[in-house]
Amino acid sequence: MRLAELSERSGVSTATIKYYLREGLLPPGRRVTATQAEYGEEHLRRLRLVRALIQVGGVSVASARDVLAALDDGSLDHNERLGTAVWALPHGRSADAEDPATETARQRADRLLELLGWGYGPTTDVTPPALGMLVTAIAALERLGYPCAIEDLEPYARALGQLAVHDLDLVERYGGTPDEQVEAAVALTVLYEPVLLALRRLAEAEESRRRFGGT
Amino acid sequence: MRLAELSERSGVSTATIKYYLREGLLPPGRRVTATQAEYGEEHLRRLRLVRALIQVGGVSVASARDVLAALDDGSLDHNERLGTAVWALPHGRSADAEDPATETARQRADRLLELLGWGYGPTTDVTPPALGMLVTAIAALERLGYPCAIEDLEPYARALGQLAVHDLDLVERYGGTPDEQVEAAVALTVLYEPVLLALRRLAEAEESRRRFGGT
Repeated sequence: MRLAELSERSGVSTATIKYYLREGLLPPGRRVTATQAEYGEEHLRRLRLVRALIQVGGVSVASARDVLAALDDGSLDHNERLGTAVWALPHGRSADAEDPATETARQRADRLLELLGWGYGPTTDVTPPALGMLVTAIAALERLGYPCAIEDLEPYARALGQLAVHDLDLVERYGGTPDEQVEAAVALTVLYEPVLLALRRLAEAEESRRRFGGT
Repeated sequence: MRLAELSERSGVSTATIKYYLREGLLPPGRRVTATQAEYGEEHLRRLRLVRALIQVGGVSVASARDVLAALDDGSLDHNERLGTAVWALPHGRSADAEDPATETARQRADRLLELLGWGYGPTTDVTPPALGMLVTAIAALERLGYPCAIEDLEPYARALGQLAVHDLDLVERYGGTPDEQVEAAVALTVLYEPVLLALRRLAEAEESRRRFGGT
């Protein structure tokens, strides 16, 4: 398909598609004339993922490029890539290494993962983003004096462990080639985040109503 | 305590505290001389909540002011306020009413809540923020062609319903006066959001490893 059709089918303007092509978020089309290129279903699919990351996930263009590079990394087998891509997804806030609460939080996060028996991907010296995000969150709770002991955190981890089974079922049910599944895993991780946060707030309001009455 | 001590105990600079006072995020201190005021434990506590909302939750100053106004609303009894404050918490993205996917998503969200038997606070014509957030998220999934049928969403809602019991237990265990509990409910809702998202990514990486092997 030509650029105009890609734009129509994806709902993304041609100007934005050109921008994504320049920024390397979309692979170039197959050139058919000096000024025209032909795009395929893989462009449409990749465009959906880019929109999920940038528009819903609030991921920067530079970070989105890193995620896509990891997805396309031929040095990992595709099953490894699925977990690795999610685990390496960037996040907005980074841990403040200067903060003494960060070191305590890091130890607590490590103990929690050990207790759960969760390894977390290839061991490197670099803190994986998902772990960094957990450490930052625990440090913030600690610094502000809110409960965040291992016993407080564990039920959340157990519940999300159960939901991860459902997350992966959704990815497998989505089907497609291994490449498409890795893309879907990343997109569904990001796109379901606001679903989770919204449902949690509604569930809390409901539980509060049950517990304390009111309307 | 004086401003300097409030700054030291809260870890917030005096310049930032003065800014929050000017913006109405903190109630004024008790004036003792023409240039000095005295602050109490309630200022310290409110300051922690403001930091949780703004620094961790990414809530704007204007939105934080609205949340605090809802907390301080004497027209609701304190038990009602707990659920209402969480349910009214602002969020970053708002639904695009122009988008045809939004109407479908709204109907699906309503059916899901009906299926779960969740009422959602006082009925008004205005869409509560938490519901708006859910609708926007479903519309994004729908538009990008990812699975988001009622059956896909239900397991997430059930899991978060169970976690809400734990959320409220944490608030009750935190103790304090009813006012303090409502503040803690809002702070814990916001502060545990990155904990949930980080644990989900780690859980997905772990589940992917179990299911597909790899390191």
